[in-house]
Amino acid sequence: MIESMTHRRTIRRYSQKEVTDELLYRLLEAASHTATMGNMQLYSVVVTRQEEMKKRLAPTHFNQPMVEGSSVVLTFCADFHRFTEYCNQRDAKAGYDNLLSFMNATTDTLLFTQSFCTLAEDEGLGTCYLGTTIYNPMQIIDILNLPQLTFPVATITIGYPDENPAMADRLPLDSIIHQESYHEYTEEEINNIYSHKESLPENKQYIIENSKQNLAQVYTDVRYTGKDNEAMSEGMLKALKHQGFLK
Amino acid sequence: MIESMTHRRTIRRYSQKEVTDELLYRLLEAASHTATMGNMQLYSVVVTRQEEMKKRLAPTHFNQPMVEGSSVVLTFCADFHRFTEYCNQRDAKAGYDNLLSFMNATTDTLLFTQSFCTLAEDEGLGTCYLGTTIYNPMQIIDILNLPQLTFPVATITIGYPDENPAMADRLPLDSIIHQESYHEYTEEEINNIYSHKESLPENKQYIIENSKQNLAQVYTDVRYTGKDNEAMSEGMLKALKHQGFLK
Repeated sequence: MIESMTHRRTIRRYSQKEVTDELLYRLLEAASHTATMGNMQLYSVVVTRQEEMKKRLAPTHFNQPMVEGSSVVLTFCADFHRFTEYCNQRDAKAGYDNLLSFMNATTDTLLFTQSFCTLAEDEGLGTCYLGTTIYNPMQIIDILNLPQLTFPVATITIGYPDENPAMADRLPLDSIIHQESYHEYTEEEINNIYSHKESLPENKQYIIENSKQNLAQVYTDVRYTGKDNEAMSEGMLKALKHQGFLK
Repeated sequence: MIESMTHRRTIRRYSQKEVTDELLYRLLEAASHTATMGNMQLYSVVVTRQEEMKKRLAPTHFNQPMVEGSSVVLTFCADFHRFTEYCNQRDAKAGYDNLLSFMNATTDTLLFTQSFCTLAEDEGLGTCYLGTTIYNPMQIIDILNLPQLTFPVATITIGYPDENPAMADRLPLDSIIHQESYHEYTEEEINNIYSHKESLPENKQYIIENSKQNLAQVYTDVRYTGKDNEAMSEGMLKALKHQGFLK
């Protein structure tokens, strides 16, 4: 499994072959054995197969072609709603309308999501993780009709691969590991950590295309800008309040 | 792999056999190929092997015996610090001191964490996920010397299993799946979803031990109370501000 994980790659183009419900549910069932806080399973999955629903979701994911081009779109939601309903029906005073509970449910959800992806890839499916889910949470909440104490945290598109992309580069392993306590990076260490990434032809091309001085500026000025991040942080705070996770 | 995931269980008791650095790094390297936002790898892992450091961490995890009883304790941290340092060195204006960036880094970290756990279990190791990490973030930040724009989000204890616990129950699969949009649960559905859990002898025993009327009250009044959650939410907000992720 180490071998297959090491060679995994994100798949954004899928063949016409559908992922059957039988396989999908078998994967979700196995993934549901992932560790979960107090065995509460604080997540739900919304399965999108209908073309019309994919069309509605697409703009919330910046119209990335994977949404409409995949067999199934899965929106993994942090969910303290179901458990709170259970408590309410049993005269138990649920206190899960707060940030910690949101983080607990988010954690459960993301661990479950990743187990699902690993299993799906092991069965020959291609997966793509859409980070855009938390960029437009309110729109997704509306479209999927997500009730109080739920929140969309991850979207995965799946299908049978119709491409064979190159493997993505990764940072040197020792740059992400710290022994006993966090080791502050020296300037030289930072240079070494990112030198391979900066040397890649595709990254040099991005610098030229965007008229920037270096790769870091492509990130800060084009891809993930402070201005966008601030605006989306506001949107996220609003959505957390709307869903009852923040006062 | 579906088979082994379905039969996985959390391991809290470990033998004396040490997990070698060679195996640990091989697992972390493979896990680092997990999907990551914009290929930024927004995480760090602090490896705790020294007895003294385990002793210091133990109280932050409510002195659960796995911390001192494991071969290795791993604290997985959301990390926008390293990338921000990289940007700062290149005259690129990093804007990652906000909630969205915290969530992006947390997502990267938890996906990476779960891949690591799946790989570790596949290699015969036992793992235990400590949800307590976000209960006492400031203490962990102090002990591990975590800089601005980092945050501890997951702790995993690992070692070779010295127990063979029963499998934990899970909710019926269809209770966590929603077709096309979120299906609101009826009262009868909630009863059905939780009936198996409520029928288990160990859960009936918890009700008696805690002098409660039902299992839901064991959760709301004893295990995960609103009062505790509110206090820990405050602690989390403070820690997010302290680490620079919230104004």
